[in-house]
Amino acid sequence: MSDKTTIGVGMIGYAFMGRVHSQAWRSVSAFFDLPLVPRMAVLGGRSKESTEAAAAQLGWADVETDWRELIRRDDVQIVDICTPGDSHAEIAVAALQAGKHVICEKPLANTVEEAEAMVRAAQAAPSSVKSMVAFNYRRVPAIALARRYVEEGRIGEVRHVRAAYLQDWIVDPEFPLVWRLQKDKAGAGALGDIGSHIVDAAQFITGQRLVGVSALTETFIKERPVAAASAGLAATGTGEMGPVTVDDAALFIGRLSGGGLASFEATRFAYGRKNAMRIEINGSLGSLAFDFEAMNELWFSSGGGGFERILVTEPDHPYVGAWWPPGHGLGYEHTFTHEINDFLEAIATGADPSPSFADGLRVQRVLEAVERSAAEGSRYMNVED
Amino acid sequence: MSDKTTIGVGMIGYAFMGRVHSQAWRSVSAFFDLPLVPRMAVLGGRSKESTEAAAAQLGWADVETDWRELIRRDDVQIVDICTPGDSHAEIAVAALQAGKHVICEKPLANTVEEAEAMVRAAQAAPSSVKSMVAFNYRRVPAIALARRYVEEGRIGEVRHVRAAYLQDWIVDPEFPLVWRLQKDKAGAGALGDIGSHIVDAAQFITGQRLVGVSALTETFIKERPVAAASAGLAATGTGEMGPVTVDDAALFIGRLSGGGLASFEATRFAYGRKNAMRIEINGSLGSLAFDFEAMNELWFSSGGGGFERILVTEPDHPYVGAWWPPGHGLGYEHTFTHEINDFLEAIATGADPSPSFADGLRVQRVLEAVERSAAEGSRYMNVED
Amino acid sequence: MSDKTTIGVGMIGYAFMGRVHSQAWRSVSAFFDLPLVPRMAVLGGRSKESTEAAAAQLGWADVETDWRELIRRDDVQIVDICTPGDSHAEIAVAALQAGKHVICEKPLANTVEEAEAMVRAAQAAPSSVKSMVAFNYRRVPAIALARRYVEEGRIGEVRHVRAAYLQDWIVDPEFPLVWRLQKDKAGAGALGDIGSHIVDAAQFITGQRLVGVSALTETFIKERPVAAASAGLAATGTGEMGPVTVDDAALFIGRLSGGGLASFEATRFAYGRKNAMRIEINGSLGSLAFDFEAMNELWFSSGGGGFERILVTEPDHPYVGAWWPPGHGLGYEHTFTHEINDFLEAIATGADPSPSFADGLRVQRVLEAVERSAAEGSRYMNVED
Amino acid sequence: MSDKTTIGVGMIGYAFMGRVHSQAWRSVSAFFDLPLVPRMAVLGGRSKESTEAAAAQLGWADVETDWRELIRRDDVQIVDICTPGDSHAEIAVAALQAGKHVICEKPLANTVEEAEAMVRAAQAAPSSVKSMVAFNYRRVPAIALARRYVEEGRIGEVRHVRAAYLQDWIVDPEFPLVWRLQKDKAGAGALGDIGSHIVDAAQFITGQRLVGVSALTETFIKERPVAAASAGLAATGTGEMGPVTVDDAALFIGRLSGGGLASFEATRFAYGRKNAMRIEINGSLGSLAFDFEAMNELWFSSGGGGFERILVTEPDHPYVGAWWPPGHGLGYEHTFTHEINDFLEAIATGADPSPSFADGLRVQRVLEAVERSAAEGSRYMNVED
Repeated sequence: MSDKTTIGVGMIGYAFMGRVHSQAWRSVSAFFDLPLVPRMAVLGGRSKESTEAAAAQLGWADVETDWRELIRRDDVQIVDICTPGDSHAEIAVAALQAGKHVICEKPLANTVEEAEAMVRAAQAAPSSVKSMVAFNYRRVPAIALARRYVEEGRIGEVRHVRAAYLQDWIVDPEFPLVWRLQKDKAGAGALGDIGSHIVDAAQFITGQRLVGVSALTETFIKERPVAAASAGLAATGTGEMGPVTVDDAALFIGRLSGGGLASFEATRFAYGRKNAMRIEINGSLGSLAFDFEAMNELWFSSGGGGFERILVTEPDHPYVGAWWPPGHGLGYEHTFTHEINDFLEAIATGADPSPSFADGLRVQRVLEAVERSAAEGSRYMNVED
Repeated sequence: MSDKTTIGVGMIGYAFMGRVHSQAWRSVSAFFDLPLVPRMAVLGGRSKESTEAAAAQLGWADVETDWRELIRRDDVQIVDICTPGDSHAEIAVAALQAGKHVICEKPLANTVEEAEAMVRAAQAAPSSVKSMVAFNYRRVPAIALARRYVEEGRIGEVRHVRAAYLQDWIVDPEFPLVWRLQKDKAGAGALGDIGSHIVDAAQFITGQRLVGVSALTETFIKERPVAAASAGLAATGTGEMGPVTVDDAALFIGRLSGGGLASFEATRFAYGRKNAMRIEINGSLGSLAFDFEAMNELWFSSGGGGFERILVTEPDHPYVGAWWPPGHGLGYEHTFTHEINDFLEAIATGADPSPSFADGLRVQRVLEAVERSAAEGSRYMNVED
Repeated sequence: MSDKTTIGVGMIGYAFMGRVHSQAWRSVSAFFDLPLVPRMAVLGGRSKESTEAAAAQLGWADVETDWRELIRRDDVQIVDICTPGDSHAEIAVAALQAGKHVICEKPLANTVEEAEAMVRAAQAAPSSVKSMVAFNYRRVPAIALARRYVEEGRIGEVRHVRAAYLQDWIVDPEFPLVWRLQKDKAGAGALGDIGSHIVDAAQFITGQRLVGVSALTETFIKERPVAAASAGLAATGTGEMGPVTVDDAALFIGRLSGGGLASFEATRFAYGRKNAMRIEINGSLGSLAFDFEAMNELWFSSGGGGFERILVTEPDHPYVGAWWPPGHGLGYEHTFTHEINDFLEAIATGADPSPSFADGLRVQRVLEAVERSAAEGSRYMNVED
Repeated sequence: MSDKTTIGVGMIGYAFMGRVHSQAWRSVSAFFDLPLVPRMAVLGGRSKESTEAAAAQLGWADVETDWRELIRRDDVQIVDICTPGDSHAEIAVAALQAGKHVICEKPLANTVEEAEAMVRAAQAAPSSVKSMVAFNYRRVPAIALARRYVEEGRIGEVRHVRAAYLQDWIVDPEFPLVWRLQKDKAGAGALGDIGSHIVDAAQFITGQRLVGVSALTETFIKERPVAAASAGLAATGTGEMGPVTVDDAALFIGRLSGGGLASFEATRFAYGRKNAMRIEINGSLGSLAFDFEAMNELWFSSGGGGFERILVTEPDHPYVGAWWPPGHGLGYEHTFTHEINDFLEAIATGADPSPSFADGLRVQRVLEAVERSAAEGSRYMNVED
């Protein structure tokens, strides 16, 4: 490994996203032949004790309890932001200003204003300083393959996008008021958390922008038990009730820049659907369909035939060559390993990583248009360019 | 068969719908033990020669080239309307006024006004004179079973309806300008032809009304070759082009009377989807999913588990007891046999058949609200009660 | 209909098979443009009263309680044998000797000897007298399409056949001792009833013969309640127990004449499988897969890709052009309508219908080899040519 | 991590199996709370240069080119054998005699004799020295859940096992003569490589032994291009041809110790099937079905219903609690992480790991009976106990 350069990583946050990012940092260089080999230098968290325990388990060499300290360290060249959305902008802007590369969890920020500030910081940084928003679903091999097919013209002109992200983890009214159900922390509910993924995926696969939307949102359960601790997804109630301040579900329809129609649905109330991130695209020459619950499959129709179930595990499929023989599927975490591979490659080669902060802002603007439409009688809202 | 009463049927139209209705009239009494046995008395059509040929093939005893004559005949007690939507109102109203039972193809009419006139005629008729609109998908055993499960409370309170009717038969821009693409004949495009089915199915299964909608519609191919003959689905072009005056696709989102959210999509541009009439319903206790392309299956989730694939071929499933052993599936035409069985049963017992003309009008009002919303910037439109 | 010739049909037996054959005779000329139009002349059964009731319901003009009388009638040109296997040979031979066309339910007979006698009678009859064994699954459009693909060389050389016919209707030990569980009536159990279908389908689709087999059979439930009446599938018990004298399940592996390997399983103990008649064929250039529980689908892989789900509802698919538009699936009974269409066409054109009695005998010989192998320690048995 | 004990691992072989084992050793303690934390001490391989490169990439601290040296090292307490089957016995016996824990890839050995020697060595070792054969499919959460369901009596008495392992990577006759196609290296072909997995899975899930078999095997392509290098799966040909000395496909049927019937098929000629390791089990009260190509799903039928698709991603499913939220599936490599977790846990707690070498021998004896039956006219062979 003597001819490889190591690059130090500091990651902030070690809940769900921090755990999966750690696995990606830990694994990436065993599978991808990278010029830069990441070193898991520092884990940032608020409580020293918990952060140390997490660092021990997840394999980080050191800890910091103040993210500003983490950014400042010489052994940190990459800052990986895995905190809730309300702190993204502040951390990312500071890190970029300190000359660090930044990879930031999605959604980019909780508001368009914050996202704009982040884009400005990314643009103000030297071109050698890279930034990326972590829409990991772009790195599902099946979704990357779908993008490839669209680029190659295999489905022709896009007529329809039909996207839904269906979960059911808050169907139970007794499920507590965790941070993801609070607007000040999470920014939005299903719309921001999972709706952002399908908006990004739709724009990524089609290579088009969503130019306008008409929307409905709803909060089915208005009050929930106040959680004793709000950090995790699950928490024990205290008897006290508090208001749910985000949407439980968001539905919107809209138009693509190329003239096609699109529909979106994000909900956590789809009983029996666990992580059904689904997208179907119908073009003038073919169609593509995907469901994350069967993440190693892409369905493709063209030439007048039915849908072919492509098991996206062949060596020539995106990212797959790095892993196992055909039919030996990948899992959720691999999407993060791919993402980090691409980010490291961009840093090493000087290319611009994608999705950029500007791409993240573009998604944010769609979400804002959705919220405004929902607030104004579903009126069609143009999405700012 | 001596203890059974026969009842004479006159059917108008013998294209696609006429052929399938004929099979239903021909088969129903061999499978269902009915007090009334239909006699296929008269087939109505414009051209004597073609109508006679059709009658010979389809098994009708006589023909009429004027529908008014058909209605007047003593050997006709039931009038079955299988013509395009622009003639429904006139024929149905006349038949009801003549004291004949009427079963009318969907959508009930091309406009709300016509549909209202039909409802008035149905209400003005003696209670022994029955009328029904032929939303045959209600008689898919899987859909009838879905309704039963909702009625029994097995999915709890309805949170989401996700309905789509996807076909692809006009993807090719060279497909000719048949009557279904002309507003004066068909009333609407995908919206009226197939959107009406999913609106009716959603209202039927949930037992709720759609109370408001926000919509987008689009005509992707604005001009098509003028068809030499406009009667059939396929026709040879003449070189001349004519305007498509109906929607190619309609998307809408809305609210149900019980507080749930619903999304709908009707399109004939979903490459590779042939007759994907799909509906998924998520409730507080369970979910149901159906796709007509696998019409003998209903998918059901409850009790925290995944989706069970119910093969709707058991003797205790709706309509199935009349047919074959488990696992021996039914086809498209059976839905019409079921529909006609239910209609005959209603006539025999004096019950009110369902869906009534009023149910048909309710669908029509949704379609009208969709068109108005689409015309007015997707603004949310309340559906009249 | 004046330019068409009618041909009189006499059908013997009106249980499950008789009901479905009746629907086929009733429907065939409305969908297929045949030179010969069948007339449902006589229904044969043992009890006058029951046979008359069945005739009234199923649409037969007259009845006979002695099948010899039925055969003798001048208004009967076709004899359709829907009785249990123990009477097939006697009736078929007599009918052929009387110069009547014969269509006979499968398996052709209960023993190879009987089947040979039937083949001799068929060969002895004038060439204008036609005979056919009713392996209806050949007329599933998806299976006919599979055959077409193999013939066209689309899957190359056949390496594997993997066939199973899975049902579960006698899983319950309390299910009574109906005729299908008695060797003297049914000849064999799962092997003869459903195993015969997959053997025929395998030979039909591949165009090859099964040349040798090694087998295991088992009767899981050795005694069952004696049924009060043995005619139907379901019957009420009398408290008395009787021995099950047929196999509950049969497994066998074998070789095809072209060098491929094949496996077969027939069972009525596959909990949750209702009528899963499945066959997968792997060739040197592609593969085909089918499951009757989704009878309108054929799965096809070639060119290095995954499996394409072909919805076998396109006008150019076998038999489909006679029915409905794409995506509007067919059901179980249609396979019989297709079969009878093909039989009538053969009679009209003088062609030899297929599967012939000789084809039926070929299946019988496989079944016999299976039984012998199972009896002799699974030793590999060559199938007589 | 101060309260945890580390344990040194030496792994021999770094091809496909070595790569996936490395990922498991690297990841296990980040997800499972283990008393023993593995240290990736030494990688063994024949060529110093290649082994060093592999060690660098895969994260091993040191290398040895002589496996005897590796075994001898004080920093190695666990020996992980990832070499072809012909060297398993020698290495495993030596390692056990040296007091090292041994985890050995499957099949346990190339012959029953070798496997017996390994079992003797395992039994002769002190009880604190643990050994395990790496049938990783037991650690697919869905398969572990299937085992749990059978143990809980949820499918009742087992009537049928229907297992197949279908791949297609040698369909092309130009595919070279790699080591897996040579009997001296691989021991057997599809039978040993993938057939062993389904035999083990069948015995594991049912908790029963396969007591006798009747078999057919075949080598479709008798000669293949001699590979320039035989180490990997892919290799460039030299123009020279060599004989394939193993089976291309093996089919066998048999009986379980509990009285059920079982069928097995292992082939690398199932065009379009990439890694379809499938097993269906039908019991008197329910059924289970699994296909590795959709490895996060288990299908379950009981209570008279259809098959439920259980997404095996819930926290209470085997192994799943260590990973991600519901619906976020796992991949192939996770089965190895689970296996290594269980092995470490057994070492730490003193429990006997499973599958033991004795379990591996049991599979070996089935494979031997299959080969003998195939050689002796498919005669039923009892499997030695």
